[in-house]
Amino acid sequence: MMKLYYTPDTCSLASHITLIETGADYALERISFKREEQRKPDYLKINPKARVPALVTEEGVLTETPAILVYIAQKFSAKNLALMNEPFAFAEVQAFNSYLCSSAHIAHAHRMRGYRWVDANDTRSIEAMKKKVPESVGACYELVERELFKGPWVMGERFTICDPYLFTLVQWLEGDGVDIARLPRLKEFRERMSKRPSVQRAIEEETKKAAAE
Amino acid sequence: MMKLYYTPDTCSLASHITLIETGADYALERISFKREEQRKPDYLKINPKARVPALVTEEGVLTETPAILVYIAQKFSAKNLALMNEPFAFAEVQAFNSYLCSSAHIAHAHRMRGYRWVDANDTRSIEAMKKKVPESVGACYELVERELFKGPWVMGERFTICDPYLFTLVQWLEGDGVDIARLPRLKEFRERMSKRPSVQRAIEEETKKAAAE
Repeated sequence: MMKLYYTPDTCSLASHITLIETGADYALERISFKREEQRKPDYLKINPKARVPALVTEEGVLTETPAILVYIAQKFSAKNLALMNEPFAFAEVQAFNSYLCSSAHIAHAHRMRGYRWVDANDTRSIEAMKKKVPESVGACYELVERELFKGPWVMGERFTICDPYLFTLVQWLEGDGVDIARLPRLKEFRERMSKRPSVQRAIEEETKKAAAE
Repeated sequence: MMKLYYTPDTCSLASHITLIETGADYALERISFKREEQRKPDYLKINPKARVPALVTEEGVLTETPAILVYIAQKFSAKNLALMNEPFAFAEVQAFNSYLCSSAHIAHAHRMRGYRWVDANDTRSIEAMKKKVPESVGACYELVERELFKGPWVMGERFTICDPYLFTLVQWLEGDGVDIARLPRLKEFRERMSKRPSVQRAIEEETKKAAAE
């Protein structure tokens, strides 16, 4: 059975939803950022990057959301969640997720993790980064809304691994100072996704586990 | 025939090398950052992200290096450059490339593209970002050296799409203030890659095209 190391309100939710979508058998292990568990020796043995998600499989540990999502889709290929048998469609899935990972998520990360890119004591620069987030994150999702999102799902008629990932990241828009009303297609998508049983179950599982601690 | 939009000294080199490795038929189209061609209407029609690489295929345009590399590998599957038939090995390939894209390349980008994440007129914060680059980039490649790089190639005995991508990015270490002597395995890898015919041909094609303009 696979085990997903996750933290509520992080991008690990995308892997969690995808596990449920495929019907995979999985266990959850919560990593508390508040207690800095991601930096403790036990967890560093699992993921030396000190991040979530990490997916423990029978063959070893996997990290990085775009990789984990495709792995789950490939292992449970009957659901065809990555369109892997169509090279161009698969590449579009991958390009979308790569953009979320390396542009949209990164823009967002400058709100709370600025210390990665300037001296941790340089509060002025860290504040300057925060101030730019509404603009930089907003620009990423405007591009998604205008150019990349096909609708009704990211890739059009077919639900793919892009959908849990995009849903996870658009949860953060208000916190980043971006009014989702500016992005009507993404707003409708987020509402529709939030009614999906896999999404409701994933959030419930993460909330319940968090509350129990 | 596929057409690769590239700029010398950018991550598009990874796609270029991979095209050569597979024996694909391709054309090159140079985008000059100096002339800001990536922001001109003609190019924005091809890639609204205003970045390179972009790969024009018969089915449409692809962006994002991790997606392009897998696409090329899948279209020319005889070379098995992505280990796609082994879900765990493929996921490791993807996780490695995702780390390069969303951590290593991003750390590097704070040296010259700080305006993406703070106000473009805030020269003090932009300088503060530059100052952190040797440390943040150095930490990424120390992790690669210590934890991710199997040797002699990234994934061990098999040459994969991770190798052109890593080679491309480790070209920038000196510019980022990281002494590659600290990273002996990556140093040896870079030397070995630079003797590979595909790498020599890609660099020669990019240099020749640049000189001709």
